Amino acid sequence: MASDTELQAMRTALEAARSTARTLPNPRVGCVLLAPSGEVLAVGAHHGAGTAHAEVDALQQAGDAARGATAVVTLEPCAHTGRTGPCVDALLAAGVARVVHGQSDPNPEAAGGAERLRAAGVDVEGGVLAEDAAALNVEWTFAVTHGRPFVTWKYAATMDGLSAAPDGSSKWITSSEARRDVQRFRAEADAIMAGTGAVLADDPRLTVRDADDLPLPYAQQPLRVVVGESRIPSYYRVFDRVAPTLLVQTREPDEVLSKMVENGVRHVWLEGGPRLAGGFWNAGLVDRVIGYIAPAMLGSGRAALEGEAATLADLRPIDLDDVTRIGPDIRIIGTPGRAPREEMP
Amino acid sequence: MASDTELQAMRTALEAARSTARTLPNPRVGCVLLAPSGEVLAVGAHHGAGTAHAEVDALQQAGDAARGATAVVTLEPCAHTGRTGPCVDALLAAGVARVVHGQSDPNPEAAGGAERLRAAGVDVEGGVLAEDAAALNVEWTFAVTHGRPFVTWKYAATMDGLSAAPDGSSKWITSSEARRDVQRFRAEADAIMAGTGAVLADDPRLTVRDADDLPLPYAQQPLRVVVGESRIPSYYRVFDRVAPTLLVQTREPDEVLSKMVENGVRHVWLEGGPRLAGGFWNAGLVDRVIGYIAPAMLGSGRAALEGEAATLADLRPIDLDDVTRIGPDIRIIGTPGRAPREEMP
Ligand SMILES: NC(=O)c1ccc[n+]([C@@H]2O[C@H](COP(=O)([O-])OP(=O)(O)OC[C@H]3O[C@@H](n4cnc5c(N)ncnc54)[C@H](OP(=O)(O)O)[C@@H]3O)[C@@H](O)[C@H]2O)c1
Ligand SMILES: NC(=O)c1ccc[n+]([C@@H]2O[C@H](COP(=O)([O-])OP(=O)(O)OC[C@H]3O[C@@H](n4cnc5c(N)ncnc54)[C@H](OP(=O)(O)O)[C@@H]3O)[C@@H](O)[C@H]2O)c1
Repeated sequence: MASDTELQAMRTALEAARSTARTLPNPRVGCVLLAPSGEVLAVGAHHGAGTAHAEVDALQQAGDAARGATAVVTLEPCAHTGRTGPCVDALLAAGVARVVHGQSDPNPEAAGGAERLRAAGVDVEGGVLAEDAAALNVEWTFAVTHGRPFVTWKYAATMDGLSAAPDGSSKWITSSEARRDVQRFRAEADAIMAGTGAVLADDPRLTVRDADDLPLPYAQQPLRVVVGESRIPSYYRVFDRVAPTLLVQTREPDEVLSKMVENGVRHVWLEGGPRLAGGFWNAGLVDRVIGYIAPAMLGSGRAALEGEAATLADLRPIDLDDVTRIGPDIRIIGTPGRAPREEMP
Repeated sequence: MASDTELQAMRTALEAARSTARTLPNPRVGCVLLAPSGEVLAVGAHHGAGTAHAEVDALQQAGDAARGATAVVTLEPCAHTGRTGPCVDALLAAGVARVVHGQSDPNPEAAGGAERLRAAGVDVEGGVLAEDAAALNVEWTFAVTHGRPFVTWKYAATMDGLSAAPDGSSKWITSSEARRDVQRFRAEADAIMAGTGAVLADDPRLTVRDADDLPLPYAQQPLRVVVGESRIPSYYRVFDRVAPTLLVQTREPDEVLSKMVENGVRHVWLEGGPRLAGGFWNAGLVDRVIGYIAPAMLGSGRAALEGEAATLADLRPIDLDDVTRIGPDIRIIGTPGRAPREEMP
C-alpha cells in the first residue's frame, strides 16, 4: 500500500505533469523523489521529445541524495532506449530503493519497466491514482494501444448545421472567443489536418498562435497535414516557414493515418472541411468531436459534415462529454458511439 | 408609492397569475383585494376566455367587504366589453377605493381603464413590478401590439443540423424527454402549425397530451393549423376529433398569420417542416427559436431549415436566452436578431 506521503507525492507528480506544455509524441509524466524520511528531494517532469524523462529530471536534481529514495512516477518507468536511455537503468544506477507508479505503460515497446526493477531488487508498487495518471495522456494512450493517432474532429457551424454559405464564404462563423479556444486545443495536438478543399478555399495557416496572433516557434508547432490529390500552389500559407507541412496525396483515411504514424503523430486535430471530415466519419475514424455552434441560422449552404447516411438507422450517436458557452457560441464536446442509438423504437 | 403591503400583494397576484394554465387568447392576470387594514380579502385569477376576469373573480369572493378596499392587479383593468363586461365597471360598482396595477394594458381596444377609474375618483397607481407582470404575457403583449401572433419555431435536429434522413425518415431524432418538453411548450401556445409536407410525411397529431400520452380535453387543445395548397386525405390524424383544425391553403406567411388573427390566435407554435419554417424565417416572422439538438450526426439528409442565404452576410444572428440539457439532448432557446452580426469583420 502506498503511504499517505506517497499519495501526496503522486498528486504533486500529477500536477508537475499537467503543468507541462504539449509533450507529444511522448506522454506527459511527472516524478517526485522522496527521502526515506518522507521529505521531497526533487520534483521532475518530462518536457517533450529529446529532453530528459521525468525520472531522470528528478534524479539529476537530487544527485547523491537519491540513494535509498522512493521514486513516485505518474507512468511506469520505461525499459526501452529511445532518444534517451531507459529510465529503469537511471533509477537503478541512482540506487533508488522503491518505485511507486500510476498508469502502467501501455506502450508494448517501452513496457516491462516494473518487472525489470523488481528483478533488480527494487520494491515496486503500481496503479496508484492510475485513473488520474491515465487522464494525463488519453490521446497518447489511445495511439500506442491502437497503433494509429487519436483523431479529434473540430467543426464550426450555425445552429442549422452549416459551415459555409452557398457561395463558399465561411470565415468567422464563430466568435473570436471560439477561435482562441480552438488555438488552445490545436496546441495540444501534434498534427493539424485539413483537406485540399478547405485549404484552396480558405488558405488557412493551420498553425498555433498566441493571444496576440503570433505563432509559436517552429519547433513547437504541430505538423500541418494537407490531404487530397489536388495540387496546392506554393504561395498558399500552409507552405510558409512557420511550421512543417506534410502533403498526403490520397483520399483514404487509413493511408493518411499510416503516414502520420510514420511521422510519430499521436493526436491529429482534423479541421475539415466537410468532405474530408465525412471520409473520416464514415470510416469510423473520429475519436472525439468538438463542435462550435454559432447562435445564428443561415438557411442554405454547405453542411459541416458530408457523410453518407441513407436512412435514420444510420444516425450515429455521440456521448456528450461537455456543453459550454464560449463567448457567444456553444461548444459541444462528445465521443462518437459505435452502436446505433438504443433509445430508438 | 405602493406600500410594502401592496408590493407583497402584487407578488401574490403575480403568483396567482403564473399558476393558471394557458389563458390565451387572453392574458394571464392575477388580482389581490386588500382591506384598508392591509388584510388580504381575496386572491383572484383569470382562467381563460369566457371565464371571469381576475378582478371580478376576486370581487365575487370578497362580496361586500370590497367596499373601500384596494385592488392590486398585475395588468391595468380593462375598459372594454368583451365576452364579459369591463372590469372598471365591476371595480367601481363594488366601491373599490384604490387600484394598484402592474403592466399597463398594451391592447388599444381594452386600454383606458386607469383613466376611467381616476375620472370616477379612484386612487390609481400603475407600473408596480411592471416587468414581472409583463413577463407573464410576453406573447400576448407582442400579439396585441403588433397585430399578429407571436411565432415560436421549434425544430429538432442532429448536431449537423439535419431533421430527416435522405429517405425522409425523421421520427424520434430526439429523446422522449425532449418530446415531453415539447408537449409542455405546445400547451402554452394557442395554435400548433405545420406544413402539408410534414403532415403528409409524418401524419403528426399536433395535439397536447399528458405524461401518459392522453390528449387534453378538446376545449383545452390549441388550434391545429395546416399550411399549404396540397390536399390532405381525410384519414390523416390532423382531422381526428381531438382538437379543432384550420387549413390555410396558401404559401404566404402573412396570409397565414392574418387567418390566425381572425381566429383569435396570439401565439403560434410552428413545428415545421423545413420549408414552411424557411418561409417564415425568410419573411422575418420567427420571434423565438427552440431547437432540440440530438447528440448524434447523420452526415446527409434534410436540413432543419430551408432558407435562402446566398453568402455569409445573410447569416442571421440569434440572441441565446437559454441552453440546457434535456435528457440526452441539448435545448437551445433564442431570439432571432434583425441586424447582421456586428462581430463580423
Ligand atoms: N467552418 C468550418 O469548420 C470549416 C472548416 C474547414 C472548411 N470549411 C469550408 O468547407 C469548404 C471546403 O469544403 P471541402 O469539402 O471541399 O473541403 P475538404 O473536405 O477540406 O476537402 C475536400 C477534398 O479533400 C480530399 N479528400 C481527402 N480524403 C478524402 C475523403 N476520404 N473523402 C473526400 N475527400 C477527401 C479531396 O481532395 P482531392 O480532390 O484533392 O483529392 C477532396 O476534394 C470551404 O467552403 C471551407 O471554407 C469550413
Ligand atoms: N425534426 C423536425 O423537427 C421535423 C419537423 C417537421 C417535419 N420534419 C420533416 O420534414 C420533412 C417535410 O419537409 P417539408 O419541407 O416538405 O415540410 P413542410 O415545410 O411541412 O411542408 C412544405 C409545404 O408547406 C407548404 N408551404 C406553406 N407555406 C410555405 C412557404 N412559405 N414556403 C414553402 N412552403 C410552404 C407548401 O405546401 P403545398 O406544396 O401543399 O402548397 C410546401 O410544399 C419530413 O421528412 C418531416 O419528417 C422534421
